[in-house]
Amino acid sequence: MSSSIFSAARLDSRCFWKEGKIAKSDMWSNKRLLVRASIAPSPQIAWKKSEKLQKDVRVAVLGASGYTGSEIVRLLANHPHFGITLMTADRKAGQSLGSVFPHLITQDLPDMVAVKDADFSEVDAVFCCLPHGTTQEIIKGLPKNLKIVDLSADFRLRDILEYEEWYGQPHQAPELQKEAVYGLTEISREDIRHAHLVANPGCYPTSIQLPLVPLIRANLIQLKNIIIDSKSGVSGAGRGAKEANLYTEIAEGIHSYGITKHRHVPEIEQGLSEAARSKITVSFTPHLMPMSRGMQSTIYVEMPSGVTVDDLYEQLKVAYQDEEFVVLLGKGNVPHTRHVRGSNYCLMNVFPDRIPGRAILISVIDNLVKGASGQAVQNLNVMMGLPENMGLKYLPLFP
Amino acid sequence: MSSSIFSAARLDSRCFWKEGKIAKSDMWSNKRLLVRASIAPSPQIAWKKSEKLQKDVRVAVLGASGYTGSEIVRLLANHPHFGITLMTADRKAGQSLGSVFPHLITQDLPDMVAVKDADFSEVDAVFCCLPHGTTQEIIKGLPKNLKIVDLSADFRLRDILEYEEWYGQPHQAPELQKEAVYGLTEISREDIRHAHLVANPGCYPTSIQLPLVPLIRANLIQLKNIIIDSKSGVSGAGRGAKEANLYTEIAEGIHSYGITKHRHVPEIEQGLSEAARSKITVSFTPHLMPMSRGMQSTIYVEMPSGVTVDDLYEQLKVAYQDEEFVVLLGKGNVPHTRHVRGSNYCLMNVFPDRIPGRAILISVIDNLVKGASGQAVQNLNVMMGLPENMGLKYLPLFP
Amino acid sequence: MSSSIFSAARLDSRCFWKEGKIAKSDMWSNKRLLVRASIAPSPQIAWKKSEKLQKDVRVAVLGASGYTGSEIVRLLANHPHFGITLMTADRKAGQSLGSVFPHLITQDLPDMVAVKDADFSEVDAVFCCLPHGTTQEIIKGLPKNLKIVDLSADFRLRDILEYEEWYGQPHQAPELQKEAVYGLTEISREDIRHAHLVANPGCYPTSIQLPLVPLIRANLIQLKNIIIDSKSGVSGAGRGAKEANLYTEIAEGIHSYGITKHRHVPEIEQGLSEAARSKITVSFTPHLMPMSRGMQSTIYVEMPSGVTVDDLYEQLKVAYQDEEFVVLLGKGNVPHTRHVRGSNYCLMNVFPDRIPGRAILISVIDNLVKGASGQAVQNLNVMMGLPENMGLKYLPLFP
Amino acid sequence: MSSSIFSAARLDSRCFWKEGKIAKSDMWSNKRLLVRASIAPSPQIAWKKSEKLQKDVRVAVLGASGYTGSEIVRLLANHPHFGITLMTADRKAGQSLGSVFPHLITQDLPDMVAVKDADFSEVDAVFCCLPHGTTQEIIKGLPKNLKIVDLSADFRLRDILEYEEWYGQPHQAPELQKEAVYGLTEISREDIRHAHLVANPGCYPTSIQLPLVPLIRANLIQLKNIIIDSKSGVSGAGRGAKEANLYTEIAEGIHSYGITKHRHVPEIEQGLSEAARSKITVSFTPHLMPMSRGMQSTIYVEMPSGVTVDDLYEQLKVAYQDEEFVVLLGKGNVPHTRHVRGSNYCLMNVFPDRIPGRAILISVIDNLVKGASGQAVQNLNVMMGLPENMGLKYLPLFP
Repeated sequence: MSSSIFSAARLDSRCFWKEGKIAKSDMWSNKRLLVRASIAPSPQIAWKKSEKLQKDVRVAVLGASGYTGSEIVRLLANHPHFGITLMTADRKAGQSLGSVFPHLITQDLPDMVAVKDADFSEVDAVFCCLPHGTTQEIIKGLPKNLKIVDLSADFRLRDILEYEEWYGQPHQAPELQKEAVYGLTEISREDIRHAHLVANPGCYPTSIQLPLVPLIRANLIQLKNIIIDSKSGVSGAGRGAKEANLYTEIAEGIHSYGITKHRHVPEIEQGLSEAARSKITVSFTPHLMPMSRGMQSTIYVEMPSGVTVDDLYEQLKVAYQDEEFVVLLGKGNVPHTRHVRGSNYCLMNVFPDRIPGRAILISVIDNLVKGASGQAVQNLNVMMGLPENMGLKYLPLFP
Repeated sequence: MSSSIFSAARLDSRCFWKEGKIAKSDMWSNKRLLVRASIAPSPQIAWKKSEKLQKDVRVAVLGASGYTGSEIVRLLANHPHFGITLMTADRKAGQSLGSVFPHLITQDLPDMVAVKDADFSEVDAVFCCLPHGTTQEIIKGLPKNLKIVDLSADFRLRDILEYEEWYGQPHQAPELQKEAVYGLTEISREDIRHAHLVANPGCYPTSIQLPLVPLIRANLIQLKNIIIDSKSGVSGAGRGAKEANLYTEIAEGIHSYGITKHRHVPEIEQGLSEAARSKITVSFTPHLMPMSRGMQSTIYVEMPSGVTVDDLYEQLKVAYQDEEFVVLLGKGNVPHTRHVRGSNYCLMNVFPDRIPGRAILISVIDNLVKGASGQAVQNLNVMMGLPENMGLKYLPLFP
Repeated sequence: MSSSIFSAARLDSRCFWKEGKIAKSDMWSNKRLLVRASIAPSPQIAWKKSEKLQKDVRVAVLGASGYTGSEIVRLLANHPHFGITLMTADRKAGQSLGSVFPHLITQDLPDMVAVKDADFSEVDAVFCCLPHGTTQEIIKGLPKNLKIVDLSADFRLRDILEYEEWYGQPHQAPELQKEAVYGLTEISREDIRHAHLVANPGCYPTSIQLPLVPLIRANLIQLKNIIIDSKSGVSGAGRGAKEANLYTEIAEGIHSYGITKHRHVPEIEQGLSEAARSKITVSFTPHLMPMSRGMQSTIYVEMPSGVTVDDLYEQLKVAYQDEEFVVLLGKGNVPHTRHVRGSNYCLMNVFPDRIPGRAILISVIDNLVKGASGQAVQNLNVMMGLPENMGLKYLPLFP
Repeated sequence: MSSSIFSAARLDSRCFWKEGKIAKSDMWSNKRLLVRASIAPSPQIAWKKSEKLQKDVRVAVLGASGYTGSEIVRLLANHPHFGITLMTADRKAGQSLGSVFPHLITQDLPDMVAVKDADFSEVDAVFCCLPHGTTQEIIKGLPKNLKIVDLSADFRLRDILEYEEWYGQPHQAPELQKEAVYGLTEISREDIRHAHLVANPGCYPTSIQLPLVPLIRANLIQLKNIIIDSKSGVSGAGRGAKEANLYTEIAEGIHSYGITKHRHVPEIEQGLSEAARSKITVSFTPHLMPMSRGMQSTIYVEMPSGVTVDDLYEQLKVAYQDEEFVVLLGKGNVPHTRHVRGSNYCLMNVFPDRIPGRAILISVIDNLVKGASGQAVQNLNVMMGLPENMGLKYLPLFP
């Protein structure tokens, strides 16, 4: 299926099902919806071995041997339309994914190949889970008809000079940068629909922009002295073997890192500045703590004279009441990271501070889901004209 | 819907879907499969608020405020046919589930009621997640047409004297005990199909019987001196407030408990003895360790003269090759509990011991899923004539 | 030994040892320093069973069955002068400490008694580890000649109306409150020397005041908008059986709690206001995270015009360069909680913020040691005229 | 000080102190016991900066940048006679220990040097914490008068062919091997007294031999079918950066590893075979679990006809009743690893099995202390004729 057909589908959005009967748009009618068979096969048939389904959107995962890559695989296992047909991992080329991630050993997937050996002719869409810095060149070389969601930081910063400043090397694909859409789904959904290349947001920026952008747009908080104290699980550091991320170095403790210099700073400030239509500089201090998944941002803000915490609450309520994945808790309820683990939800709330005129915003996400692979699937759903929650209907795993 | 209809369905098993078109058995034809709407609603519609689906099997969860109860809710969120219409929790009566389990706050569920106030007239099936000792009386009082899966230990022991010996009180429902079917799905599937009441196995017994039963049946291991060293996560102890289960008392350590006296012993010995057709006494030592979910059983066995580890491997392969949820790993690969977390899988393998003539069996499960709520859903699927994996297609959450 | 003799000793401070020969002050000469025998017994003697030493200061631990009580016992095991002769625990009366805390089973200690049955006639000093609210009455009833360090919050607030406001009950010992000395050792050492009753600081207040007080005194930070984001281990919540502190509820996650309402707030504000000689209101948000011990406070401050981060660094260096337990790290080095675990150290540092004119202070302690029992021992050392580090020479346990 | 003097001291053992007066053996009289000053300096003197003590045994730590090296440093901080004067770390040469282990930043220690640049002329004793395989050559090159405790596996196996078989390379110092004494202190104390080179036992072998050796010697257990199921913390794997030991790969799970092939097997079998005076082959399965420190061995044994569990208990009681660091718990009490954390204790107990004629032994240690650096200090104490518990009087850190 060519991406041009999908583009049309996205615009028409005539595809839907209802009440047990399937009403198809023209777009879908030329595909056998083979995936149906997986939903309720006959119980007489041993479904285990025959489950290799032909799904209608053929997806490539570049960089499948890292945590964001394997998380894409986990999520897509329940996606009725996205089927993985290509996986790359340069250092693990020739291996099965199950040998690298034994928790995925039950999946029937193509072996991983080196990205240089990948054949994209049978691919409709790409999740690019490669490291920062290497991604621009690779995406530049992909066929133009593919829908691409890039999970690296390589296309997140609109200003390529800022990219160079923070990443220490010139941008390799400035033309592509111009067409890249920043993929904070709830904020930029309409642009994402039409995008060819989506720059999937970072985990910290997601947890920070979701509560702040609606409030900044509504002029409900001061733009100066926004203090952000974030706490992250360890999977955000990836699967690379580093002494600092050993169990023994992480368990039973916490520490700040990257104080004032974390590479997510320009992305955060870009998003907030756009919302404000003026340059914002934030205080941002991330902390690394013993949890594999999860992220909390505790954000300390000042309100303009006359604005109350109730005003902030109401604004967030209006902003997110029709969203599935962003949930404003009832007044006074505190979000916990463990209440979103494994899911695409962002829980948030706002609290009065002891200091009059100040408020405290708290948001929590799973850094690998809403902070990475989950939002990536959400974005590709939007790009494909599919319901945003397809493949994402996982409730949090607790305890 | 009466359970008798479901019984018919189970026998006929003519229900299936294929290729985008729904071919219904007679059984299903009198229900609108409203659940379809949830699979792919029109993207124009804000599906979040309208998602309250009418599913066709109305399920009650008794004891919803514990970990196995909340796990049932998590799993059923993706089950196309089981819809929760009743939840009980005596001490939390009147509360919403989201107030007790904030990770489930996004679910639209009935408030919890006291079990004495529950109306079972609109219920087709029951998951009973109540504590040991209280369950017999309550199940005895339920309408006879309900399908019941009981997750407590109250109906697991066929010998009611043994129940009395280990639980310190006489059995309250000896008649019901006679018709209860022990629900180790892969071993007793055919009996479960016809059951009215399934006694869902304990977590330790599940992890131990799955590898041992096929080998015992095939006379491939000695019946004496079976040494079982099990390691469990903490959620198996439930959500009750006990000093011994505080974070500070569990983190960063391990200890044995219930040595020789753990209440799962008679259940384990019952299952193995039945497979052997002779009384087996095992050595069983459980350990409590710092993980919320997960269980490993390391089992040390002697082989009869002439039997090799390869024979054991082949027997397990034959036993489970057509099973979705029980997976024998490739030779030499070691199961990890973290590779089944959140999923209904049991991974296993068998290894040669240094001591000639001995073998080491290792199996891992998530104690709350295959060891409790997941197997319970699997069992109700079987009882209802549905595909066993319905609502259970969760890949493990790793890391 | 009467406490008046110790008071004299404290003033004279003529007690010291040097070069293998012991020069004793008059105060010590009337005691046989039996403890010497423990330092280097003859290797021929089996020291294990004969180690019950008579130490010269007889110490009582009230509330020995909680974590701060057991931590006092751990620390005093290496204290050459403090010997425990009385332990109370109302609900565990009649039991040995080893039965309640098996890690202390090797210690030869008196069995615990109910506080009402305790005989204080053979006691020189008391560590009071009882819960808030019960302590005032009990301390009021103790003999007047005892040196007392109270680890509860009951005597920390100078203003008894503030106590009533935050603790919901009238102060039971207002006269004693007047003579209580707030025991932040490095800040109030001189007052502690002469104290009869020391109110040992809370863990959060310790981690917050140590970096802030010298800077406030030197007018190097603005008094408004001090934002404190603290992260605590779970042992601070004590050993009481609460659902919220179960392993399953704490592991692998983080959450804020007591936002704006934590009972340590008035204590923090009292200390900072005194340093400033004007009323300070702070923003204080504690977080609970999966570690048994440890606490980090990340503090966001504004500097007056013209003040630089280097000025702050120099001021902290001057304040603490002669302190053993408060350590300012080298510029740019980040304190980790795991680098103080089990020790009485407070590590701290100060960093420039991205927002000009702002700074970020970070301090870490072990909440049970410098945040509780360690500082209590340090305080009693000061009250007794002993070297402050006696019994506290434990390096951090890492990993 | 030459080691020959120490040897004399060991034999004479005339050094002791008592009742506040120091009675010195001839051996000690020629040294000023400067360390005395640290025990109770005048409180007027800021002791922090002046604490650099001259201790009388000058110790080198080879391989100081690993966990066993840093643990030696932690323990020696409270040792009155052992002072560290040399530290090596090839890849960290030129750095301070505090830069590599910030938890030790308060210690005044020499910078690390490459082992090839080390000057051993001012050294009395050596703790060798280098990796397996590199140690034989280095120890061969050390001055002959040094007392050496080697924490690697390089001198543990008496049979150099067995070394070659398990470590895949020929032994580089067969002559030295002959004089090496295996340093399981409680078992081989007399040989250790006279040793020049002690091979410090591995962690698993320590936890296994301590309970088994006395029972085997007394013919109280069968020599066949000894089943050992061990559970270890992660620090045993060292500080090397390996994917398998990342926090994300270890937290919240358990797995077996090195089944039948772990390199501690020959060491275990050597010790048990010596006790039995006949060749023993054991079943040994180690497990890796989420704790930084700690190790439990659960050992399943058969008893000869007529022997009871009480016999085993009494034998262990006799064997260890005069030992400080090996503690048999009261009957029925279960050892927990967290009850020895940070200490040199081994707790153990024996339990009846459900299967008649069988028993279950449980022992717990801190793998870095009694399983490595603590036992190493204990051994050097013995070699030097000092009390065994010098520098080891740390109670467990709990919680």
